[in-house]
Amino acid sequence: MEQVALESNAVFIGIEYLATFFCGLSGGLAAIHKRYDLFSILVLSWVTALGGGITRDLLLGALPPVGITDKGFVLTALVSGIIVAIVHPEIDHLKWSMITTDALALGLFAVNGTAKALAYHSSGMTAVFLGMFTALAGGTIRDILLNEVPSILRDKHLYAVPSFVGCLLTVFAARATDHWNLGLNGEMILDIVVVIVVFALRMLSVVFNITFPGAVERRQTHLP
Amino acid sequence: MEQVALESNAVFIGIEYLATFFCGLSGGLAAIHKRYDLFSILVLSWVTALGGGITRDLLLGALPPVGITDKGFVLTALVSGIIVAIVHPEIDHLKWSMITTDALALGLFAVNGTAKALAYHSSGMTAVFLGMFTALAGGTIRDILLNEVPSILRDKHLYAVPSFVGCLLTVFAARATDHWNLGLNGEMILDIVVVIVVFALRMLSVVFNITFPGAVERRQTHLP
Amino acid sequence: MEQVALESNAVFIGIEYLATFFCGLSGGLAAIHKRYDLFSILVLSWVTALGGGITRDLLLGALPPVGITDKGFVLTALVSGIIVAIVHPEIDHLKWSMITTDALALGLFAVNGTAKALAYHSSGMTAVFLGMFTALAGGTIRDILLNEVPSILRDKHLYAVPSFVGCLLTVFAARATDHWNLGLNGEMILDIVVVIVVFALRMLSVVFNITFPGAVERRQTHLP
Repeated sequence: MEQVALESNAVFIGIEYLATFFCGLSGGLAAIHKRYDLFSILVLSWVTALGGGITRDLLLGALPPVGITDKGFVLTALVSGIIVAIVHPEIDHLKWSMITTDALALGLFAVNGTAKALAYHSSGMTAVFLGMFTALAGGTIRDILLNEVPSILRDKHLYAVPSFVGCLLTVFAARATDHWNLGLNGEMILDIVVVIVVFALRMLSVVFNITFPGAVERRQTHLP
Repeated sequence: MEQVALESNAVFIGIEYLATFFCGLSGGLAAIHKRYDLFSILVLSWVTALGGGITRDLLLGALPPVGITDKGFVLTALVSGIIVAIVHPEIDHLKWSMITTDALALGLFAVNGTAKALAYHSSGMTAVFLGMFTALAGGTIRDILLNEVPSILRDKHLYAVPSFVGCLLTVFAARATDHWNLGLNGEMILDIVVVIVVFALRMLSVVFNITFPGAVERRQTHLP
Repeated sequence: MEQVALESNAVFIGIEYLATFFCGLSGGLAAIHKRYDLFSILVLSWVTALGGGITRDLLLGALPPVGITDKGFVLTALVSGIIVAIVHPEIDHLKWSMITTDALALGLFAVNGTAKALAYHSSGMTAVFLGMFTALAGGTIRDILLNEVPSILRDKHLYAVPSFVGCLLTVFAARATDHWNLGLNGEMILDIVVVIVVFALRMLSVVFNITFPGAVERRQTHLP
């Protein structure tokens, strides 16, 4: 079971905490830039870090969601808010570090959300949806609360697309593990490859300014 | 059972797909007008077409919701996004076609949501709420994501009111079917009448600029 | 059981209706100030009064939520919308009455939401989260629909903080009741004290302009 692969391994758990922490930093930083008070900073750190998983659990019916029940993750998100409230001038200088950690979190949450959905016997399509919600909903709720158009719509670079690719690959990785009996270690290696692919897609898009095409541009209309 | 009446009939299923498709067109068009990329167009098509049903299923506890599990509806919503990305100049010319199809979808989703809630043994009041969520939540989520005040609040013409009337009439139709043993065909005819009533109310309101009164206008206050 | 203490007592039930009513007034008033029609006024009264409880029930999995099933509460919320549509000029003059009743509702919903979560065997931390959602989500959804940054983030005075203190104290009150066998009356007195504490914190903050610190202000950065 994917779930087991994820939860039985210290590397994966450590990485998930890291993703939570860095999402929390980015949420808290957004609140600081708007000059909100410490409580609002904590609220935005928490919602950015754990809002994706909460949305996934709501849609799965796994209630109450991990984002309000798991002391480790809640504490991690809140600690990230407190830390960013103190060291925000340094973090502001770390623009590329933030983009990097955000891209890493994107990949980690995509794999994690898809795997949890598969462990709950979701179909492949449903698992892809739930993986994308896990990766994207936290930042989307943050942007809605800040009264901005969410990054998934606004970001010119690839952001939702890498998460989609990652969720799809995670489903294939789980299918391959079952089919060829790859075992826990085999699946873990595949999952790590997926995280790297998502990370690379996102970073390449930002660095080389790669964008996704919009609607087909046509001047004339051909109505009969 | 209402559910059975809806699901056993090819006409109803065809009509529900049509409603999904036209809601998807309108969501995708909104993304194109903001010049978002193809992925954002698909996201908005999907959320506008299926967000209402997802909200209904979340509140009913019917999880995971149809909007992320039913391949037919998901595909219909995404295909509508792809189509509108290509033929948007033509669709922009079809202002009245869009208002017409939107009004049709309003009626169809109101009947569909109310009927599903009744099939889950909801009370009449709860079924009316869930029907209205089905009809209105998709467009509301679309508007929130686009950082606009939702149409249900902003639209000067009757929009939420026809859906309310439609949900109420659907409850009466289900009660009448049970009471007088009207059978599947009888209920279906009543449901079609309800869709027509919602459609007519919405269209008449737009065509003849009929609006709903606001708060009572009074200049003087009479505080003791 | 906390739940029993809340539901078996006429005082508590009366107070909860009052909180619903006053939240409904404030939601309707916001719609009137934007010159929306009567239906939008009712929508905003309902969502402001019952949106917090709906969010709590969604996260608890207590579905369908009370906010669409309980005729008494739904009616109270809608009646508050109708009343404010008529007497809004008077209510506009009652700025301090609104702040006062809003502060009272904040305390009541915090105690109520935390108690319901404990009755569903939530941990203390989860109960605090659910209490805060009950107290704060209704106003937050109202602000999102009105396309404004929610009060929990924007309000310079203490708003989320008193609700947090109230939820925490409610958990302690429940623990104390169990530990020292205080019984129904003992718990009720403790709960009333909690409501008063929340109310006092909020009012003192507004009256004496007490604010919560923001991020640590530092000009220089010390990156190595």
